Amino acid sequence: MRDVAVIGVGLTEFGELWDKSFRHLIAEAGSKAILDSGISGSDIDAMYIGSMSSGRFIGQEHVGALVADASGFSNLHIPSTRVEGACASGGLAVREGYLSIASGLNDVVVVGGIEKMNDVAGATATETLVTAADQEWEAFFGATFPGIYALIATRHMHEHGTTREQLAQVAVKNHANGALNPHAQYRREITVKQVLNSTMVAYPLSILDCSPVTDGAASIVLCAAEKAKKFTDKPVKIIGSGQASDSLALHGRRDICTLDATVHASKMAYNQAKLTAKDIDVAEVHDCFTIGEICAIEDLGFVEKGEGGKAIENKITTLDGKIPVNTSGGLKAKGHPVGATGVAQVVEIIQQLRGDADKRQVKNARIGLAHNIGGSGATCTVHVLEAM
Amino acid sequence: MRDVAVIGVGLTEFGELWDKSFRHLIAEAGSKAILDSGISGSDIDAMYIGSMSSGRFIGQEHVGALVADASGFSNLHIPSTRVEGACASGGLAVREGYLSIASGLNDVVVVGGIEKMNDVAGATATETLVTAADQEWEAFFGATFPGIYALIATRHMHEHGTTREQLAQVAVKNHANGALNPHAQYRREITVKQVLNSTMVAYPLSILDCSPVTDGAASIVLCAAEKAKKFTDKPVKIIGSGQASDSLALHGRRDICTLDATVHASKMAYNQAKLTAKDIDVAEVHDCFTIGEICAIEDLGFVEKGEGGKAIENKITTLDGKIPVNTSGGLKAKGHPVGATGVAQVVEIIQQLRGDADKRQVKNARIGLAHNIGGSGATCTVHVLEAM
Repeated sequence: MRDVAVIGVGLTEFGELWDKSFRHLIAEAGSKAILDSGISGSDIDAMYIGSMSSGRFIGQEHVGALVADASGFSNLHIPSTRVEGACASGGLAVREGYLSIASGLNDVVVVGGIEKMNDVAGATATETLVTAADQEWEAFFGATFPGIYALIATRHMHEHGTTREQLAQVAVKNHANGALNPHAQYRREITVKQVLNSTMVAYPLSILDCSPVTDGAASIVLCAAEKAKKFTDKPVKIIGSGQASDSLALHGRRDICTLDATVHASKMAYNQAKLTAKDIDVAEVHDCFTIGEICAIEDLGFVEKGEGGKAIENKITTLDGKIPVNTSGGLKAKGHPVGATGVAQVVEIIQQLRGDADKRQVKNARIGLAHNIGGSGATCTVHVLEAM
Repeated sequence: MRDVAVIGVGLTEFGELWDKSFRHLIAEAGSKAILDSGISGSDIDAMYIGSMSSGRFIGQEHVGALVADASGFSNLHIPSTRVEGACASGGLAVREGYLSIASGLNDVVVVGGIEKMNDVAGATATETLVTAADQEWEAFFGATFPGIYALIATRHMHEHGTTREQLAQVAVKNHANGALNPHAQYRREITVKQVLNSTMVAYPLSILDCSPVTDGAASIVLCAAEKAKKFTDKPVKIIGSGQASDSLALHGRRDICTLDATVHASKMAYNQAKLTAKDIDVAEVHDCFTIGEICAIEDLGFVEKGEGGKAIENKITTLDGKIPVNTSGGLKAKGHPVGATGVAQVVEIIQQLRGDADKRQVKNARIGLAHNIGGSGATCTVHVLEAM
């Protein structure tokens, strides 16, 4: 397989964007990435778009073609494919774009991720989000994602002594990072006390343990590594790409505190990159709920299983910690437009590895990792990136 | 890129299958394909699933993971990705599966296509299908797919002298083929008179010019060509794969009688296969409406632009014609479970090239083509296959 590099990134503001439509957002993110990369439309061989539920959120399927069209490329007839894996749709789009270049077929591919979640007609965002769970075994009986992750959290507390305060510290850290990110939905710091006293959603997760409902889009431009320097001075190579699945329903898992899809996807990515968790300098992980980040840092191998809560407490994952995690603010503070998230994570890692992350910059960041989860862990993608 | 072969196929019955669920159908098609191929679960490196609107039809997104799980593979953690391009979702799944092997990453990939369209809660199938059109410029104003294809048909009649009788003859031919296909939704012959006298849906398309609402699933197993003989004596090689996009809304096209995505995707596939339309022995094309088949045989280069109606009249595309088209019965008679269609087309071509098509068998079929369209032509995939 050929080496593949990221040569451009683009991001919209994340938030409740009532005055921007789905097509406006994805065209904005895509245009920024294309401008950043130095390519022109005629260089693009293919497009991959991650979107979880455009059909339910905005009544629009067929968004691969829509995005090519809305970007002004309909006359170029560029192959454009939507991929979906719930909240891992963005990570899957990155991986498919990567494979299509690694195969030798394409040289330049634009990857986009998008979700327009706020102005939903006829249903709440929660009702649509739960279509990422098992409809017959979970959603039908009233389960929602806060409830499903609450089951993971209470078990983690029982098995490993994790505390509500440790969960809250994940949110506090990510808000502190989000406060430094001009694209974040929440650009303000919060305290442990505020998290603990905020409205309870599903014990032990209060509202400030949960990522928000967000509109937003992200885009990256991928290029065959051997041609990347033609377009940019700062290409970043994808040195590992992993993907794995697991049972859709939580009750099908070997251990509900371990997301085996993360374990397998990261192993695949580490093996390809010929490195281990110890080599990662900065990571974006899937903190849809605070417990998600604790499981992620354990399952990715940054800390031992069961040590995630203590690691947060010991500030190992802060901006100046041993392994800074969610420097963007994460899903919690940056926001979680579900189909965009996996692409936006890669955007943050690229900015870190290029040294473009401004006040969020991790010193000497050379190797970064992006970890994207669908549902309660039935899909996972892991990408490892290195500055060229 | 490495060569890729199809080593197994599986199909469910197509129809109104009230007693079979989404997961039942895809597991049935997948199991049949796996048994046909001679692989076992542990051989599978990845899965790709085409489904247009599972989120709206059955309230379930995240169907990549669901399908791996429902197939009994959750413990294997196989990467499983859903792709969506409206009614071309199946063709896109074939293409992504193909690319993932061509890249050198995977050796064995299971591709599935599925749609469960009949037992829809809270909306009609037509309301969900129109999410494949441009929501802001077409659907919002009341356009439905019969209406959109009726615009193409009336323009084709005006420009090229195509007649309602010629349109009807597409349906008559496809029903004649469908009568020979044990998996088809409609296994009965019809007459031109019956088509012309059937209920008008959108002039000039009567109900017998339209493909039905269908439940069904299809699956194929792909394998690196160099390893295919290990599993089967009758591998069929994918010698060309093409994909293209176009404006989502019909009004954005250069000429509404020409589906430029078909022109571009077929050119890409022919170039890769190093052959022309004249070399194709049998084809499955996207006849969601009878006018669709007429445009397809023109845009694929089987006949000159404008000559499609006359070609049908002159029986060029019948089972014993010069270029047999839709030997399965096509979307019209076999049925059109939208996400399954693109995979089911490949299944029919494989059966033809293996000599397994029984009463529908085309003599000396060596090279076949599958043509899959999303919406009114904003996405197209074309695959060219050859017996090894």
